[in-house]
Amino acid sequence: MPGTHIRPFLPALQRLRCSSAKMPIPPAIFTPDISTPSDSPYPSPLRQTLGQTAQYIRTSTPPPLIAPEPKVPPPTTVVEASKRLAAWTAVDRHVLPEYKVIGIGSGSTVPYVVERIEQQGRERNKDRVFIPTSFQSKELIVSHGLLLGDVDQYPVIDVTIDGADEVDETLNCIKGGGACHLREKVLAEAADTFIVVADYRKDSDVLGKNFKQGVPIEVAQFAYAKVLQNVHLIGSPEARLRMAKAKAGPVVTDNGNFVIDAPFPEEMMREPYTLLTRLKMLTGVVEVGLFCHMAKAAYFGNQDGSVTVKWHDGRIESVDSGSSLVPKPAHKVALQESTVAEP
Amino acid sequence: MPGTHIRPFLPALQRLRCSSAKMPIPPAIFTPDISTPSDSPYPSPLRQTLGQTAQYIRTSTPPPLIAPEPKVPPPTTVVEASKRLAAWTAVDRHVLPEYKVIGIGSGSTVPYVVERIEQQGRERNKDRVFIPTSFQSKELIVSHGLLLGDVDQYPVIDVTIDGADEVDETLNCIKGGGACHLREKVLAEAADTFIVVADYRKDSDVLGKNFKQGVPIEVAQFAYAKVLQNVHLIGSPEARLRMAKAKAGPVVTDNGNFVIDAPFPEEMMREPYTLLTRLKMLTGVVEVGLFCHMAKAAYFGNQDGSVTVKWHDGRIESVDSGSSLVPKPAHKVALQESTVAEP
Amino acid sequence: MPGTHIRPFLPALQRLRCSSAKMPIPPAIFTPDISTPSDSPYPSPLRQTLGQTAQYIRTSTPPPLIAPEPKVPPPTTVVEASKRLAAWTAVDRHVLPEYKVIGIGSGSTVPYVVERIEQQGRERNKDRVFIPTSFQSKELIVSHGLLLGDVDQYPVIDVTIDGADEVDETLNCIKGGGACHLREKVLAEAADTFIVVADYRKDSDVLGKNFKQGVPIEVAQFAYAKVLQNVHLIGSPEARLRMAKAKAGPVVTDNGNFVIDAPFPEEMMREPYTLLTRLKMLTGVVEVGLFCHMAKAAYFGNQDGSVTVKWHDGRIESVDSGSSLVPKPAHKVALQESTVAEP
Amino acid sequence: MPGTHIRPFLPALQRLRCSSAKMPIPPAIFTPDISTPSDSPYPSPLRQTLGQTAQYIRTSTPPPLIAPEPKVPPPTTVVEASKRLAAWTAVDRHVLPEYKVIGIGSGSTVPYVVERIEQQGRERNKDRVFIPTSFQSKELIVSHGLLLGDVDQYPVIDVTIDGADEVDETLNCIKGGGACHLREKVLAEAADTFIVVADYRKDSDVLGKNFKQGVPIEVAQFAYAKVLQNVHLIGSPEARLRMAKAKAGPVVTDNGNFVIDAPFPEEMMREPYTLLTRLKMLTGVVEVGLFCHMAKAAYFGNQDGSVTVKWHDGRIESVDSGSSLVPKPAHKVALQESTVAEP
Repeated sequence: MPGTHIRPFLPALQRLRCSSAKMPIPPAIFTPDISTPSDSPYPSPLRQTLGQTAQYIRTSTPPPLIAPEPKVPPPTTVVEASKRLAAWTAVDRHVLPEYKVIGIGSGSTVPYVVERIEQQGRERNKDRVFIPTSFQSKELIVSHGLLLGDVDQYPVIDVTIDGADEVDETLNCIKGGGACHLREKVLAEAADTFIVVADYRKDSDVLGKNFKQGVPIEVAQFAYAKVLQNVHLIGSPEARLRMAKAKAGPVVTDNGNFVIDAPFPEEMMREPYTLLTRLKMLTGVVEVGLFCHMAKAAYFGNQDGSVTVKWHDGRIESVDSGSSLVPKPAHKVALQESTVAEP
Repeated sequence: MPGTHIRPFLPALQRLRCSSAKMPIPPAIFTPDISTPSDSPYPSPLRQTLGQTAQYIRTSTPPPLIAPEPKVPPPTTVVEASKRLAAWTAVDRHVLPEYKVIGIGSGSTVPYVVERIEQQGRERNKDRVFIPTSFQSKELIVSHGLLLGDVDQYPVIDVTIDGADEVDETLNCIKGGGACHLREKVLAEAADTFIVVADYRKDSDVLGKNFKQGVPIEVAQFAYAKVLQNVHLIGSPEARLRMAKAKAGPVVTDNGNFVIDAPFPEEMMREPYTLLTRLKMLTGVVEVGLFCHMAKAAYFGNQDGSVTVKWHDGRIESVDSGSSLVPKPAHKVALQESTVAEP
Repeated sequence: MPGTHIRPFLPALQRLRCSSAKMPIPPAIFTPDISTPSDSPYPSPLRQTLGQTAQYIRTSTPPPLIAPEPKVPPPTTVVEASKRLAAWTAVDRHVLPEYKVIGIGSGSTVPYVVERIEQQGRERNKDRVFIPTSFQSKELIVSHGLLLGDVDQYPVIDVTIDGADEVDETLNCIKGGGACHLREKVLAEAADTFIVVADYRKDSDVLGKNFKQGVPIEVAQFAYAKVLQNVHLIGSPEARLRMAKAKAGPVVTDNGNFVIDAPFPEEMMREPYTLLTRLKMLTGVVEVGLFCHMAKAAYFGNQDGSVTVKWHDGRIESVDSGSSLVPKPAHKVALQESTVAEP
Repeated sequence: MPGTHIRPFLPALQRLRCSSAKMPIPPAIFTPDISTPSDSPYPSPLRQTLGQTAQYIRTSTPPPLIAPEPKVPPPTTVVEASKRLAAWTAVDRHVLPEYKVIGIGSGSTVPYVVERIEQQGRERNKDRVFIPTSFQSKELIVSHGLLLGDVDQYPVIDVTIDGADEVDETLNCIKGGGACHLREKVLAEAADTFIVVADYRKDSDVLGKNFKQGVPIEVAQFAYAKVLQNVHLIGSPEARLRMAKAKAGPVVTDNGNFVIDAPFPEEMMREPYTLLTRLKMLTGVVEVGLFCHMAKAAYFGNQDGSVTVKWHDGRIESVDSGSSLVPKPAHKVALQESTVAEP
């Protein structure tokens, strides 16, 4: 019976695999000669040709829709364990049972966020929708069997948890290494609470100290040459268009724009809000990868397995695996397994 | 308590109204001078400035997110009543209880489709996802409190119901008057069952007889001049780029492409699959608004209030309001109310 | 001999007509059965099938590439004559012989601008490049046989002449009725001199008095719902997404974004630069159709056939057809021909 | 005097450097406080603030518009020398003096093409326009002082010279490793003569033998999941979405689409036109990176410094540096300099 195999809260990828055999087959697939099938009754010709071209079809092991399943492997290093501790602690504190609309960001710590949310149980998650900032987070949501939402339908988000490329002492962030900062900023701004999770390398006192490639600036294609000149004049003579590697020419963002990476001198990076304002006001600039006064807290996984929590009001807190809300046995195993620190 | 006001199956627009007052407020809104707020504790300055700029804010009647609420008004003409009858009959026959993934198209008959689906009850709809082909259908889904889905997550659809610009005797269709035919074709192709609903003016023996503006062809912007010349040579000397009215220059589709409208002579329109093949093979053509061998049935609302059903195998059926599955009293009232036929 | 028919400064459309017969013909055009031509020598099969499908080809009157030739008809009303006078005066004063890179905008007065530039003669124009802001201006440039340039190649423009939807006393403008304001602003900003030409209906003391539909705001698609709520809060409860007419759903700009039209109360429109700043700073806003402190002069064609010139420093000047630089006989004829004022 | 510094046939990048100092400066650059400058005379405040913020501006060595100048370095290996020989021979034979509209493609051999065209002299090139297929070719054209053209204005091209990822015995090509194959195909199709230049590694008997990553298929974003399933069924179970490296998520093409890389078994690659047809007919496919029956000749630079020329009619020709049209002394030097073959 069609339809009965669909259960909204089963992992979607799994469903796709099961159902790929029954997917309706467009004419072009089985009619290499593209002869006009108008003289034959519908839709049997499509099904009949199935046999003739069977040699092209490998149905024994139906291929996955999206190549690698982004399930979270157990952490194998201390740093990975500390990232997981950071992510789990952030989830346990900020993804409250009554929260129904949750924004999911990107970065190497976020898979642990989604893992922890899934552990809150099917009952708690079944009325929730999850809004992704990127293709990666969309995959994470789908592969964990969570319900994908749309920011148009849910413009008010209870909590958004996202990564960052660098975070300064007052929780200003550089974001946009992945060129998703427009969507990330929309979801951060739409959230009642915006939480950053990252590893210790992103923890900094002044932006630009660790993340050297510059402030990511998304620009309209038509305006890029003009904006580049403007940015050179403003104080970033090294600013350049970000070139793609898996295609020729510049990176094109998911919004159809280009990205300029602009490193600024430290004295300018010390006032990120002023810099953000000057850059955003330039004609042709769509969004700047500086997030100022947005995060409520940042959770950093450390090399020694502990977690540092910084709050928007200046408080700094340390969480170690012993005092954490993370179930100890599982975590302990992970820590014991890992003996080599990440380089 | 944040989050508790969100219930996934309440009409989303209604929720937006309720919650707009509490939406997080980005700094730029309340800081006209754009001074750097880095010396003040977060996030109180944003809230404090609320009072200072109160004259700009009209919160007494919070504005709707999207201007007109697309709730379906009761039909006021015979034609509207017959469209509704067509839509309701199609839903009653093809949106079976076990169907969980449903594609919703566009057109003046589709609002009645969604209305009828909503009448199947919250219990039946709570496990269903609805995939829209367009902005209009997205709005319809959201405003009826149904759950929006994503074709990436649900590439196999149980049934898709859509409108058409014209339908010939073997259920080939012209679509693309609204320039959404790429998405519509994806959802039609992904569906186990594809059903067309329309009014009697779309019922035709040969495509192009009623819909004179030509076959809509979506083309990549870069290639439009070349494709236009190709299409002139193929047999449509009147083919032209579709110009926008609410913006300068050509229409840009939701996929970022242009549209060419190409009227062809009747002898070519009698073989729509051949024409579709020749057009689609042109370099630069993204999709052609000819849907061949896709629909299983077409439901047409007639001027006299009856419904004509055409099937892919040539059967023709007539449904009048008496024999229909539509609750009679409601429908009778509608018919009695309408005394003036649509011009 | 191939190539010899191409002369760079002949009107391009004319060239296209001449050469359309010899354009290389892609396989799909003449092979309706799409049989694999791999067993036949290249490229004769393509040419041979030409005869077989000749009934589809109407080569006697090869169709134009772009339907209507946008040549400027002589003005038939007083207002049109005054628009022409405004445009011609602006060109005579600001498109100096030594200027080599010229930006061409859009609007109903701009065709007279291009007409006047063409009258400066082939010798003067042969070393010039013309940068268009829109599809309309691209067509105008091409149809007058002028050389199309690219803002990436020529980011510094000597003079840009453009229309406007409304101009206030200090030459602030509303632009974006045609949704091209991002490109227009880039070209205005890249120009040493930015000149506005328009008819008297665009002349205003406060922006928003004449142009009621609101300030056009280009927004990233992903962010439109959030920005719309922000704009409502800022002071435009009537702000709404601009819906398309020649396609379903919202207008999509040439940059792939949406447009919000936001009418603001007069007190806010009196400080357009403050409003521009607040709107542009919103996450998701790409560009705002407020042009502040950019124009050096504005030329308005009046109902009585005269021209009002407003300068950035407050000077106001009146030019009538007698004192103008426009050749009198031609202009006089135009004025005498027109006896009916535009409604 | 403004404008006099612009000479249309000087290298544009050089011009940009000279003129960057005088480029009009948008308000946002020099007004970090974004105060409303409406009370000051225009445009002096912008110029005045120049001094105040001089510390941000490094005008002593004005930065280039686009980071690395793509001038062609002399070849340092035998393979590079043979690529140059291939490119120069192709130009000498196919870019005839009477050709005025020339398409320039991409790839590692194309810089030598442009180098050789420039050597034909300013007199011959001054009436020519060059149409680029990509950002790389646009840069090459501009940096060699050639005139950039637009395919909309010049839809008929005399000759297009482009690279390829692989070329089979009958000159069918795989293209699209750089995700530019839609534009490349438009320019190849618009050309009277289409010539391929490449190095020996691209010379193959069956497509897919050397270029293992699969046939590049450009697909509309909305349709990618469905097309991926279709392509798996057609015979490429390994087909996958191409992921970006310099951004998160999938590669986005210059046309705003995604790319699927689909390796097919050899028996399918032996009939590339059939495969092309089946793939292009799939709903959602924009263009396929298979170029069939398009090239007139292919020039391959060999490891030993010679050039192999293959013609569409099966002829094979060998050109060595002795018999070539390339000026010998320069070439000899290059060959002697290079003693290490490329790995």
